Amino acid sequence: MAEKTRFTKILLVEDNPDDILIIERALKEARVINRVWIARDGQEALDFLQHKGKYEDPALAPRPGLILLDINLPKVNGLDVLKKIKEDDNFKRIPTVMLTVSKRDEDIVKSYNYGCNSFIQKPLEFEKFVELVRQIGLYWGLLNVEAPTNAG
Amino acid sequence: MAEKTRFTKILLVEDNPDDILIIERALKEARVINRVWIARDGQEALDFLQHKGKYEDPALAPRPGLILLDINLPKVNGLDVLKKIKEDDNFKRIPTVMLTVSKRDEDIVKSYNYGCNSFIQKPLEFEKFVELVRQIGLYWGLLNVEAPTNAG
Repeated sequence: MAEKTRFTKILLVEDNPDDILIIERALKEARVINRVWIARDGQEALDFLQHKGKYEDPALAPRPGLILLDINLPKVNGLDVLKKIKEDDNFKRIPTVMLTVSKRDEDIVKSYNYGCNSFIQKPLEFEKFVELVRQIGLYWGLLNVEAPTNAG
Repeated sequence: MAEKTRFTKILLVEDNPDDILIIERALKEARVINRVWIARDGQEALDFLQHKGKYEDPALAPRPGLILLDINLPKVNGLDVLKKIKEDDNFKRIPTVMLTVSKRDEDIVKSYNYGCNSFIQKPLEFEKFVELVRQIGLYWGLLNVEAPTNAG
């Protein structure tokens, strides 16, 4: 069987510019062809998904196949964004991976209770971070099967 | 930072003896130290988690850190097992990965609606299957952070 080309649209919700750079680069280095959209705070992430505010034009904000979600975010906290995604019948099937420096039990427990698909801690070392994001891109872009987008 | 030794307890819910052999071997080959318990039908999986039937002694059935769940299972279907896991406040935080030959949209959509953490299709080729399971073991055993077991 020939390798299928997979194309995963990723919404990265992250306010740290350094982390955005690292994550974008690492995702590009993964063997999957990923395209990354950035939301810099929690409200922007919700606007992106719901086509509101500056994302009113759906062409600017395609439905992602994966959401990478930081917790400590301006305006709307990542946990609240997660809760809204998983309570919404239109968005709940989108794999949502928490990607955060937080090691607080409370954040981990709340994330799973709200229905995150996975919880990943950002390592402090640059090389480890790049490798980690590459693995995330491979797993969710290449191995995991997305739900069909027209599903109710 | 030295590599931490990670030890993930995996509950594999699978009725096909060939698949059990392949999955057990591939998980052992992953760099993580995984230990695998097998439930051969859906009812056995629920008994394992709830310490019922032949698993009344909790020592025989430790709380898993990962559940690999086939869909087509005797007695209780994998989708019904998933629904019960994700509706139970005690078990919902355990990452549950559907691992199935099914490519039916209905199975994929239902799995995500019920709250599976990931949906993976078993490849037909032996080598690919081994590599896939190794990747699953690495991702969930090494990268993903489990919720603390005492969490409410």
